[in-house]
Amino acid sequence: MPATAVPKSKDFMEWYNEVVEVAELTDKRYPIKGMNIWRPYGQRIMSRIDQFTRAEMERTHHDEVSFPLMIPEKLFMKEADQIKGFGSEVFWVTHAGDNPLPDGERWVVRPTSECAMYEIFPLWIRSHGDLPLTTYQICNVFRYETKQTRAFMRVREIHFFEDHSVFADEKTAREHVELDLAIVRNVYDKLALPALTSKRPDWDKFPGAVDSTGADVVMPSGRTLQCATVHYYGTNFAKAYGMKYESATEGHQFCHQTTYGMSERLVGAVVGCHGDDNGLILPPDIAPFQVVIVPVLFKGTDEAVLAACRTVRDRLVAAGFRVELDERNKSSGEKYYHWELRGVPLRLEVGPKDVEKKSVFAARRDMGKEGKKAIPMDALEAGVRESLAAIQKTLHDKQAAFVATRVKHPKTLDEAKALDAEAAKTPVGYIFTMAICSDVCAASVEKGMDIKTLGVPAGVDKAQNVGGTCAVCGKHAKDTLRFARTY
Amino acid sequence: MPATAVPKSKDFMEWYNEVVEVAELTDKRYPIKGMNIWRPYGQRIMSRIDQFTRAEMERTHHDEVSFPLMIPEKLFMKEADQIKGFGSEVFWVTHAGDNPLPDGERWVVRPTSECAMYEIFPLWIRSHGDLPLTTYQICNVFRYETKQTRAFMRVREIHFFEDHSVFADEKTAREHVELDLAIVRNVYDKLALPALTSKRPDWDKFPGAVDSTGADVVMPSGRTLQCATVHYYGTNFAKAYGMKYESATEGHQFCHQTTYGMSERLVGAVVGCHGDDNGLILPPDIAPFQVVIVPVLFKGTDEAVLAACRTVRDRLVAAGFRVELDERNKSSGEKYYHWELRGVPLRLEVGPKDVEKKSVFAARRDMGKEGKKAIPMDALEAGVRESLAAIQKTLHDKQAAFVATRVKHPKTLDEAKALDAEAAKTPVGYIFTMAICSDVCAASVEKGMDIKTLGVPAGVDKAQNVGGTCAVCGKHAKDTLRFARTY
Repeated sequence: MPATAVPKSKDFMEWYNEVVEVAELTDKRYPIKGMNIWRPYGQRIMSRIDQFTRAEMERTHHDEVSFPLMIPEKLFMKEADQIKGFGSEVFWVTHAGDNPLPDGERWVVRPTSECAMYEIFPLWIRSHGDLPLTTYQICNVFRYETKQTRAFMRVREIHFFEDHSVFADEKTAREHVELDLAIVRNVYDKLALPALTSKRPDWDKFPGAVDSTGADVVMPSGRTLQCATVHYYGTNFAKAYGMKYESATEGHQFCHQTTYGMSERLVGAVVGCHGDDNGLILPPDIAPFQVVIVPVLFKGTDEAVLAACRTVRDRLVAAGFRVELDERNKSSGEKYYHWELRGVPLRLEVGPKDVEKKSVFAARRDMGKEGKKAIPMDALEAGVRESLAAIQKTLHDKQAAFVATRVKHPKTLDEAKALDAEAAKTPVGYIFTMAICSDVCAASVEKGMDIKTLGVPAGVDKAQNVGGTCAVCGKHAKDTLRFARTY
Repeated sequence: MPATAVPKSKDFMEWYNEVVEVAELTDKRYPIKGMNIWRPYGQRIMSRIDQFTRAEMERTHHDEVSFPLMIPEKLFMKEADQIKGFGSEVFWVTHAGDNPLPDGERWVVRPTSECAMYEIFPLWIRSHGDLPLTTYQICNVFRYETKQTRAFMRVREIHFFEDHSVFADEKTAREHVELDLAIVRNVYDKLALPALTSKRPDWDKFPGAVDSTGADVVMPSGRTLQCATVHYYGTNFAKAYGMKYESATEGHQFCHQTTYGMSERLVGAVVGCHGDDNGLILPPDIAPFQVVIVPVLFKGTDEAVLAACRTVRDRLVAAGFRVELDERNKSSGEKYYHWELRGVPLRLEVGPKDVEKKSVFAARRDMGKEGKKAIPMDALEAGVRESLAAIQKTLHDKQAAFVATRVKHPKTLDEAKALDAEAAKTPVGYIFTMAICSDVCAASVEKGMDIKTLGVPAGVDKAQNVGGTCAVCGKHAKDTLRFARTY
């Protein structure tokens, strides 16, 4: 029985829409479009990602805070670009109990927390000694999506991470942007997801930002999915919210700010990039269960096999692995199917012969027959550790290799169009990297190919920004730009 | 310099309102009444409580889920008692972007999640094999409080824990209520808070419940604070939401349900019960920092002292303690004041003499001079562990002793009134435990003394429900009832 009605290899998006439900990550039947339920298995994955993020933030001396969900209209109206950017995409609370809110007030349900935080930060910042102020929160944000919603990728209630930090000057703020980009890379590594890091063009920046840098995952369709962005705000918000500090030498100065946002889209990227026709494949670092043990039972040897399975479980749990022993009254075949669908990276089968030979039989989720081998009981922990590390690396490398096949470097717009026409015949599109001299030339690529500018390679990809001869007009181009279709 | 303008010993509530801000747990300056900011230190405490709760839920095989915040009006209207109970205390989302929600819809911002969850649970439950369904979520809930708000104790955005479980019959459901009450006790133990567990009278049950049992903390004023409640819903909600299962023998049956709610009030209880005139005193199990190390520096010996401090820190961190080494450029006195205000349970002072004697000087936050002693370096970890355990126990025992002095057992209503009049002259009130034969007699206590019925001793306090001669009418009373003023 196939895991989904439509296999991934046939139609990625159809498969995606179905697999997120049959693998019990989410339930989309809640009666508000784009507000889905996190089922236990999905919740565990998201919690593990949050755990890593928290560990990274702790390591880099950020403090967790929690700001209110509701934002009074007058706070929301303080920064003009934000209103322009979010104004028609927010939900409004207008009533409490049986009456309108007092004094004609209305509250925005937070779409992001700038307005809520920056009203309070000035109360916490007096002098240079209060800076840097480095905070983050993990919360849900709300956006009135009018486009088609899609589990994890485009929803109206979004599980969200946001780092809001405040600095005395541009230099320290920009250094923090680099630190945040390094954290993004560490989190993506746990998900076995190499990404394209690009500085967005001016017309696609976050509302209110000076610079926005996104980390985009290349999905199996060749479209990119922005899962994390890091922004330098300059003094734009500081001026709107009166955020100043007293400098030792230069009087009152406006603060410089950075933010870094990341969302449940990471789960969508993991599902989309690593899964196959049999269901999910989860990177061991974030898998709720890294190992499932399936007893292979025959009459007469049941007890010895179950005892061996429990020993295996107890030893692996003691060694710190996340392990499930499936003792349900179902056939081995049903159990294989169940756990393959849910993407458990390593399955250990234990039957009477394995007990006899003092070993377990290990099957890697990311490989076929060639991924099966016996692990001797006296090297159980080391064997499992090695297998899991190999799976994590294989998933990462496989995705990196896929990205490499999708990124093309045409010299001219015509060449790009030809490649694009070729890709249009397949289900998988290309990302184009071209030397582009100006916004005008970038715009003609966008218009001529109906494509979006991801931006200039930045952060860890900085070295790829080499420039050259402009693919559109032939003049000298300082920058290399990436173009893609996006989710 | 005192920690607060008004010491705890003089006016508990004034002190409370101030200490939550000066100890940097919360910021109440956000421009919506009752929606406060969790500052990093408060956030750390709440996170630790959540961690314990999660560990307890994991141990008892509950699955974490996450349901949407918004509840369509028509779902909310399904269970009549809930609407009666919450109808005028909820916030409504009516607009998205520039327009009203489509089709005249309105969404309730969740005040609790029954309506959201019970619309979906029937989709997850088909047969007896799908039961029990044991889930929980940690989220924020919203209530339109019109009374005076108070940090952690009465707010409009509430950090909330809710266990929603579904069973095949009353027996297993009621067993789960007992399990939940045991979990409540384990969590309260971590907070060094003994509680009074009482089954609420019918007129004070949760809207829609058959039975509600609350765990009330006795605050320094003698008023009680309900921080956790466990409910048996019978089939009330199951009937409203069509939640049935197919029994092996008896066809389709309505499910029985339980819930268990708990909130940030726990933080309020910890602050209120354990603090003193110098600020917070945090139980070691939930203290963000269990130990603070303060170097006592003199010219010439600075480096040796700092090196010793770092060794102490590294050893304690390696042993699993949460430790802060205060190397700020401030006087020892300022540092003592700072950490006492924040309630760090154990302070280690290290000066040149301590280095010489190969020991550290330990000061317990919960004691005066008699709590100071040297801990030899070669018994550092054991000495710290012992001190922290002693502090945890002392805080618990002190609160238990306090509760014992406040609970009175008058034989008659007149006796209760006399005790009450006596207590009215002091700042601290009594809780009364009396044999009461009927709702009518309970009502006359409530009315005659302007007091609330907490209910019949239940759960771990069950044995205290002995009954006797009714304190109001003199007839035989099966039950003992508790009465108190509440927050």
